[in-house]
Amino acid sequence: MSKLEEKTLKSEEIFSGKIISLHLQEVELPNGKTSKREIIKHPGAVAILAVTPENKIIMVEQYRKAIERTIVEIPAGKLEKGEEPDACARRELEEETGYVCESLELLTSFFTSPGFADEIVHVYLAKGLTKKEDSAALDEDEFVNLEELTLEEALQYVKEQKIYDAKTIYAVQYLQLQEALKK
Amino acid sequence: MSKLEEKTLKSEEIFSGKIISLHLQEVELPNGKTSKREIIKHPGAVAILAVTPENKIIMVEQYRKAIERTIVEIPAGKLEKGEEPDACARRELEEETGYVCESLELLTSFFTSPGFADEIVHVYLAKGLTKKEDSAALDEDEFVNLEELTLEEALQYVKEQKIYDAKTIYAVQYLQLQEALKK
Repeated sequence: MSKLEEKTLKSEEIFSGKIISLHLQEVELPNGKTSKREIIKHPGAVAILAVTPENKIIMVEQYRKAIERTIVEIPAGKLEKGEEPDACARRELEEETGYVCESLELLTSFFTSPGFADEIVHVYLAKGLTKKEDSAALDEDEFVNLEELTLEEALQYVKEQKIYDAKTIYAVQYLQLQEALKK
Repeated sequence: MSKLEEKTLKSEEIFSGKIISLHLQEVELPNGKTSKREIIKHPGAVAILAVTPENKIIMVEQYRKAIERTIVEIPAGKLEKGEEPDACARRELEEETGYVCESLELLTSFFTSPGFADEIVHVYLAKGLTKKEDSAALDEDEFVNLEELTLEEALQYVKEQKIYDAKTIYAVQYLQLQEALKK
């Protein structure tokens, strides 16, 4: 197996924002030549697959400026500085949906776009849900509509591209797999 | 259902690179206040789930500078300007693995990071595979090792975080679901 690593020769921060930063790197390739890499740094995020006692998946409809449209997603949010992923998952679930959970199980973690970004998403399954508040406590620039979907409705949303992002499509397929394994 | 859309008040291009560009936008929120959005534009990509007649999943091991490590992924690549996703999928499969396919089925498309990027990945299932060449024809700054994994090996790779990205974890779970549905 050949050596694949790319050595950083130079790294320049082009932009540092509220959420992401952009770095332009010059790297040495395995063959000794050099190339440029455009890299986004992101604090990482959590997402929560939460199914109510009535067997409904809790979703949030949210406008996503990057894609100029609303999509329906499982609740999710960015890690605060120094925050543990499971603490972040509890916080985001409660803030976005008003639900609290007894326990969390980590289903998987994945890099969303390893070609250009270091963003990782930790996907949790929330267990023992109870509705704590009527209204959610969102960030001041965050606006969402809650939806509770059966698995069949969620699959229909995937087909209609109302559900259209990696973490939510993964989560819906995870539930589909659990259903299939039960039979 | 409340109106969620965010209106662009101002958009500034901070950086335009080989692969991504970064835009800083000022938006009007649904409540009339303003906020900033940091947005990455990306040409979009395809990924190919290709299973050989021997029932092995074709994977590529690749160093990803953004995460400073190698991971094992299904073959994938960026869309060229004006290129149709299915043509791109055929091209990338052949370039990265030396396999050609008779037909392609679109399994799903998803936005990888709708919170800050417009990157979409189209995931195809390749059917009727034949090995065309011994060596792949990679881009000049691209170095990969081919691996062919059984589903069980792929699941083990997910557990060991050798497989660690959204599209590949989705693809492995897709095969797991097909197996479960067969029984």
